[in-house]
Amino acid sequence: MSNANGDVRGGTSTLHSQAAAAKATTRRLAAATTREKNAALHAIADAIEAERDAILAGNRVDLDAAESKGLSGALLDRLRLTEARIAQMATGVRQVAALPDPVGRIDRLETRPNGLRVGRMRVPLGLVGIVYEARPNVTIDAAALCLKSGNACLLRGGSEALASNRALIAIATDAIASVGLPREAVSFVDQTDREGVREMARLSGVLDLLIPRGGEGLIRFVTDNATVPVIQHYKGVCHVYVDGAADLAMAEAIAVNAKVHRPGVCNAMETLLVDAACAHAFLPRIAAAMIAKGVTLRGCPRTRSLVPSVEAASEADWDTEYLDLVLSIRVVDGLDDALAHIAAHGTGHTEAIVSTDRDRGDRFVREVDASLVLVNASTRFNDGFELGLGAEMGISTTKLHAYGPMGLEELCAQKWVGYGSGQVRG
Amino acid sequence: MSNANGDVRGGTSTLHSQAAAAKATTRRLAAATTREKNAALHAIADAIEAERDAILAGNRVDLDAAESKGLSGALLDRLRLTEARIAQMATGVRQVAALPDPVGRIDRLETRPNGLRVGRMRVPLGLVGIVYEARPNVTIDAAALCLKSGNACLLRGGSEALASNRALIAIATDAIASVGLPREAVSFVDQTDREGVREMARLSGVLDLLIPRGGEGLIRFVTDNATVPVIQHYKGVCHVYVDGAADLAMAEAIAVNAKVHRPGVCNAMETLLVDAACAHAFLPRIAAAMIAKGVTLRGCPRTRSLVPSVEAASEADWDTEYLDLVLSIRVVDGLDDALAHIAAHGTGHTEAIVSTDRDRGDRFVREVDASLVLVNASTRFNDGFELGLGAEMGISTTKLHAYGPMGLEELCAQKWVGYGSGQVRG
Repeated sequence: MSNANGDVRGGTSTLHSQAAAAKATTRRLAAATTREKNAALHAIADAIEAERDAILAGNRVDLDAAESKGLSGALLDRLRLTEARIAQMATGVRQVAALPDPVGRIDRLETRPNGLRVGRMRVPLGLVGIVYEARPNVTIDAAALCLKSGNACLLRGGSEALASNRALIAIATDAIASVGLPREAVSFVDQTDREGVREMARLSGVLDLLIPRGGEGLIRFVTDNATVPVIQHYKGVCHVYVDGAADLAMAEAIAVNAKVHRPGVCNAMETLLVDAACAHAFLPRIAAAMIAKGVTLRGCPRTRSLVPSVEAASEADWDTEYLDLVLSIRVVDGLDDALAHIAAHGTGHTEAIVSTDRDRGDRFVREVDASLVLVNASTRFNDGFELGLGAEMGISTTKLHAYGPMGLEELCAQKWVGYGSGQVRG
Repeated sequence: MSNANGDVRGGTSTLHSQAAAAKATTRRLAAATTREKNAALHAIADAIEAERDAILAGNRVDLDAAESKGLSGALLDRLRLTEARIAQMATGVRQVAALPDPVGRIDRLETRPNGLRVGRMRVPLGLVGIVYEARPNVTIDAAALCLKSGNACLLRGGSEALASNRALIAIATDAIASVGLPREAVSFVDQTDREGVREMARLSGVLDLLIPRGGEGLIRFVTDNATVPVIQHYKGVCHVYVDGAADLAMAEAIAVNAKVHRPGVCNAMETLLVDAACAHAFLPRIAAAMIAKGVTLRGCPRTRSLVPSVEAASEADWDTEYLDLVLSIRVVDGLDDALAHIAAHGTGHTEAIVSTDRDRGDRFVREVDASLVLVNASTRFNDGFELGLGAEMGISTTKLHAYGPMGLEELCAQKWVGYGSGQVRG
C-alpha cells in the first residue's frame, strides 16, 4: 500500500491499509477539475435515485434490528429512509455540485515591494475522517462535500445504520469509479467498535483531519486519544439575553423562535437570560408565550418570584442541552452579569442579545466567545445555508481553523503562493 | 482558582494552577483596547532597555552553565544576549506595537436575503502555550505577539535559558501590571522536564492552542500526548525544482540564495531537483557555483555522471534537513517526476519551481502541498516580514488554521457575527 507522506507509523491493520489506500488518492483528487468532481456528484445523485430499492432494502435490515433492540422513536426516525428522503439525498448532492469549487481560488493577492506577488490559495485538506451517528443521510452528505472540496474521506457511521451505509457506499463508489475518479476516495470503515475510533484518531500522517460528531462521550474519547487534528462538533447550550433596552415584542418573537422552531437541534436556545431592568415586564409575557407552545420552564428564584408557576432550576440546568421543549430562565443584573453567565455556561456555539442599545450590542458581539454571536436575531441562524455557505458538514465548536458551520471553504486549507521573476533575499 | 470554561478536568498541580490563572485573564485581555495593549508593549520595550544589566546578568548565569556543560557553538550563539541583541529585542516589541490590531476586525460582511448582516470577526484564541528552544529572544517575541493579539500565553523555554528567561519574564510582567493589565497574561513555566510538557499538552479546556517549536522528538512527543489543539512548527526539507524551461541564470541565482543565504534556517533549500532536459547545461554550472560558496554536494547517479566530483547521496539524504552548507541534488524526468519526489520527501514547508513555462508553474503551485509554493523565487521568502505579515511566531507546517507564517491574524480565531432587526427562522 503506497503512502505519499513517508510519515506513517506502524499499522498493518485492515483500517490502516484502507486509510492508506484512501490517502493515496489525495493527490489525484486535489488535481481533479471542477468538471470531473461535478460529474462524479451527478453520477452519485443519479445512482441514488436508480438504486432506491436497494437502499430501502438495506435500511429495512437496520430498522428491523433497531426495532427489535427497542431503539427510541427519535433515533428510529433519524435512521429511517423513505422514498422522499432518498429523493432529498439526491437533491442535496446536486446542490453541492452547483456550489462554487473552492479549490485553487487565490485570496488577497498582493505585490510585495520586491515585485513578488503573494496570496493564499485554497487547497484540499487531504484525507478527512468523520465519525458520526446512525444517520444514513450523513454518509452521502459528507461524501459529497468532501468530493467537491477535493478531499478523500474515511467515513465511520453509527453501528445501527451499517446495512444502509453499505448500500449507499456501494452506490457512491461505483458512481465515482464510473467517471474515472478513484473509488477509494470515499472509504467506509466497516467496523463499529470503539477501538476502531481510537485507531482512526491515531492515524498520524495518514488522516489530515478527524471530525467527531455525536455524543459528548464520543467527542471526549476522540479528543483524549487523537494524534491527528480534531475539529469538534460539540453541544450547544445557547443563550438569548434580553437586555433592559430590548424591544420586548421582538424579544418574545426571537426567544420563541429560538426555543420552539426546532428544539432538537444544537442551535436551539436552552437558557433565557433576562435583565432585571425588564424582568417585571417581560417574564410574565414570555412565560405565557412559551407555555402556550408547550414549553416546560425552569427558573432561578428571581424568575419564580415573578412567575410562580415556573419550576425551580437546579445548578445542573445551566449546563444542560435539553434538545427538547424545556427552557431554563435566569434573571441577571445587566450586561456584565449576562456575559459572566455565558462565559461560565456557554459551549462556544451560538449566543444572542436582544437590545436596541447599540453599544451593548457591540460589547456583546465582541466579548462573547461563540461560533456565532447575534444581535436581535434568533440563534437558529447558525447554519450553513442561513449564513450563505450552502451545504455544510455541521457546526464546529472548535475555535481553530473553522469556528461555526463547516462548508466547502472550511474543508480546505489555505497555503501561501508566490509568483516571482527571479527574486532572491538580500 | 477560577476558570471560565467549566471544562477543566482534574489538576491541582502548580502548572495547572498557573495555567488556570493565566486562563482567567483571557476575558479581560480579549476586551483590552488597542491603546492598552500598545501601552503594555511600550512599557515592556522601555523596561527591557532600562533593565539591560539584569538581563545580561541572568544570561551570564546561563552561558556559564552551558559552557561548563560543553554546549556547541551554534547553541551558545542562540543563547547569548548582548547589548545589541537586547536593543533589538526592544525594537521588535515596538514593531509589534506598530502593527495593526487584528482583534475585532470584521471580514466579508454581507447582507442575507432576510436582511441579517453576517460576517466573520477576528477574536483572540484565549490562552496560547508555546514550547521552544533555549532562545531568550523568543520569550519576548512570543509575549509581545500574544499580547497584541489579545491572547494570554503560557511560555516554556529551553532549560539552558532558564535564568535569562526568569529575568525577562520579571521585567515583562511588571511592565504589563504597570499599565493595569493582569500580569498573569504572560505566564512562564519555571520547570523544564518533559513531564511538564506532557501536562501542558493535556490542559484541555484551559489551553486553547499549543505550539511546539524545536526538534523532531519534542514535536512528536507533544503530538502523541496532546488533548489540546496543536500547531506544529516542523522541519523544512525544502526543494527547488529547475525545470527544462528554466532561465538558467535565474535558476542559479535562486538556488544559490536558497542554499547559502542562511543555511541554518527552516526555509533554506536542502534538495535541488534538476529536469533531465537541462541537467547537461545546468548541473556543471550550479555545482561550480555551490562549491565556490563552500557547499558540499551529494547527488544521485545521474548527477554524478555529469559532475563526477559530487559525493553519492544515500536514500536518507532525500529526507534530511541539513541546516548546513550541504545540498543533495537529483535529476528528475520532468515535472511529474519532480512532483512525485516532493510528495514523497517534502515536509509541507516551502517548495519552488524555476520555469518560464507558465502552465508548468501553475501546475506546480496547484499540486504541491506546502505552506508556501513559489514560482521563480527563492525559498527564503517563507517569512512573516517577507510575506507582509510583520513579526511572526514561526512557520506552521500544520495544514489547519495557519499554514505558513503565524502572525497576529493567525494568532486569532474567526467567529461569525450577525446583526439583525428581529429576524427569526421560518
